[in-house]
Amino acid sequence: MTVYNIALIGFGGVNRALAELIATRNTLWERELGFRLNIVAVSDLYLGSVISPNGLDAKTLIDAKFTKGGFGQLSGGNAEADNETIIRTAPADIVVEATFTNPTDGEPAVSHCRWALASGKHVVTTNKGPVALAALELKALAEANGVRFEYEGSVMSGTPVIRMAAKTLAGAEVDGFEGILNGTSNFVLGRMESGLDFDTAVREAQELGYAEADPTADVEGFDVRLKVVILANELLGAQLKPDDVTCKGISQLSPSDIGDAAKTNSRWKLIGSASRGADGRVVGSVMPKQLPLEHPLAAVNGPTNAVSFNTKLLGSVTVTGPGAGRIETAYALLSDIVAIHTQSTSAIAKEAA
Amino acid sequence: MTVYNIALIGFGGVNRALAELIATRNTLWERELGFRLNIVAVSDLYLGSVISPNGLDAKTLIDAKFTKGGFGQLSGGNAEADNETIIRTAPADIVVEATFTNPTDGEPAVSHCRWALASGKHVVTTNKGPVALAALELKALAEANGVRFEYEGSVMSGTPVIRMAAKTLAGAEVDGFEGILNGTSNFVLGRMESGLDFDTAVREAQELGYAEADPTADVEGFDVRLKVVILANELLGAQLKPDDVTCKGISQLSPSDIGDAAKTNSRWKLIGSASRGADGRVVGSVMPKQLPLEHPLAAVNGPTNAVSFNTKLLGSVTVTGPGAGRIETAYALLSDIVAIHTQSTSAIAKEAA
Repeated sequence: MTVYNIALIGFGGVNRALAELIATRNTLWERELGFRLNIVAVSDLYLGSVISPNGLDAKTLIDAKFTKGGFGQLSGGNAEADNETIIRTAPADIVVEATFTNPTDGEPAVSHCRWALASGKHVVTTNKGPVALAALELKALAEANGVRFEYEGSVMSGTPVIRMAAKTLAGAEVDGFEGILNGTSNFVLGRMESGLDFDTAVREAQELGYAEADPTADVEGFDVRLKVVILANELLGAQLKPDDVTCKGISQLSPSDIGDAAKTNSRWKLIGSASRGADGRVVGSVMPKQLPLEHPLAAVNGPTNAVSFNTKLLGSVTVTGPGAGRIETAYALLSDIVAIHTQSTSAIAKEAA
Repeated sequence: MTVYNIALIGFGGVNRALAELIATRNTLWERELGFRLNIVAVSDLYLGSVISPNGLDAKTLIDAKFTKGGFGQLSGGNAEADNETIIRTAPADIVVEATFTNPTDGEPAVSHCRWALASGKHVVTTNKGPVALAALELKALAEANGVRFEYEGSVMSGTPVIRMAAKTLAGAEVDGFEGILNGTSNFVLGRMESGLDFDTAVREAQELGYAEADPTADVEGFDVRLKVVILANELLGAQLKPDDVTCKGISQLSPSDIGDAAKTNSRWKLIGSASRGADGRVVGSVMPKQLPLEHPLAAVNGPTNAVSFNTKLLGSVTVTGPGAGRIETAYALLSDIVAIHTQSTSAIAKEAA
């Protein structure tokens, strides 16, 4: 049986949810997946950092009501989040990066990933920043150090998109995609169809916890734009940067725009898409589009996300599922670890044969 | 660069489409996937059989207007389909089984698979028979002979379902699924919603080539039942046989049933499903169900298929795509070969490291 020692960088909703899964499911994973996870380090901007080579009890970590700098009270702890030391020196096989997304330069998460990969540690992350802004560099660094850089959760939380394309659509000749990649804006559009104006719908989304206090990144398409960059670079072999993708959000849609769509049996959706043109160039965009009701994405409602892959051999194949959620996003990290484990055990089995 | 020698068993629509892909895409595959396919044998009940150790030209095979027993005129040919000799003695790495589905005992396809696996040849197939009726035996035989038995195309043509669950949802704790798994019946239901009665809708499906002369297997749910058996055994670790799955088709739905559903914002769909109960037992069924319009499967129209995986960690994840089609089904065979290739090269790369 395999034990992976992991270091959690960031101890907000997602890594806390991963710790909850570890607390309740290690025995199940041992039986079904062939490994257990052992938390040997945690670092968090607010709580500080801690290294415990024998492992920290996941349940204790979740249940303790730490205050600012609280990790400092633990054996091996420090009231400061000393990320570089934690990442470079903790005896971790895998670094789990789940700090905040910086859409400008991806920092400090890009550095976290670099430190980990350069120290020969696998990285799994749900952070869009490093993937959208530095995937090429980080993948090369992983390759050079014989480890993996995995990031399924950077697009649709645990709903498989990147791995789905790589593992199940190879050779189908994907030449584009279109998706509903932001649950907040999709929820707002749905409420506008029920008669609310934009501002009221946003306020309702905020009250329900679907939208943040500053909803700009969600409703103006900036969040979707990062996801378009990730998918275009991953699925279409592009090298897009966020500025290469035209971006228009939903804040300019009026109740009468919404009503006009309904009259023509269609519906507004905020669509992130990219496709490879005849000249081989990949062009991406984010914009509200009026979809006929029979379009595969028209029925994707509320906080649900979906991506349709356009392929030469299969036509359109769509995957629909949650696009957010603590446990759903933590599952993405688990699925990355399963991928690392599967590759390494398949290689070992073959060596032994 | 790798060349896989393949033997095509059955030369109807699907294997002919695979030959078309080989004729047009070997160079692309060599570049993008790392292998070429070389047809070293073909066998067909009507055309006869042929072994050509250096390879048969795919384009010639497709273009030639062979008549009954026509393979007998080729060098190495025989006017009879000598399947056992072909499968056991052709110098093939992979046997591609695409003969007709026998829903009772899976023969002769089960024997084809047995002969191939016992001779140390991988098997890829789109044939529901061997998978629904003998998967456990055939997987064990493959394992014992160090080869693979792959069958993505047995459920939704090239739309990934089996491999999606295995490669992208491991650890998500799938405890059930429900799907629209037959395009013919789904098309018929759609036409009934437009006002046709059952018989007229079936006739239209036949004229469009969506339904066979005898539509029983499609509209009475027997085709879906085999797919429910395949998915329940694969995803839920069940050992169901077709008779274990209750089965009711759509032929008894009346125009007034259809109308009543519309009045309550719902829609009839023929749903194949299975789930694991609290006692661990897996129960499967095929039956028409009235789905509310906001249900993820309600918007799946015409010949399109879809499966929703119900998972503990992600909730519902749905994949939607073509459920039939010559090229789409041939792609499933390619995706099986990609999976065989990926596993073997990843192991070799690790060995060399």
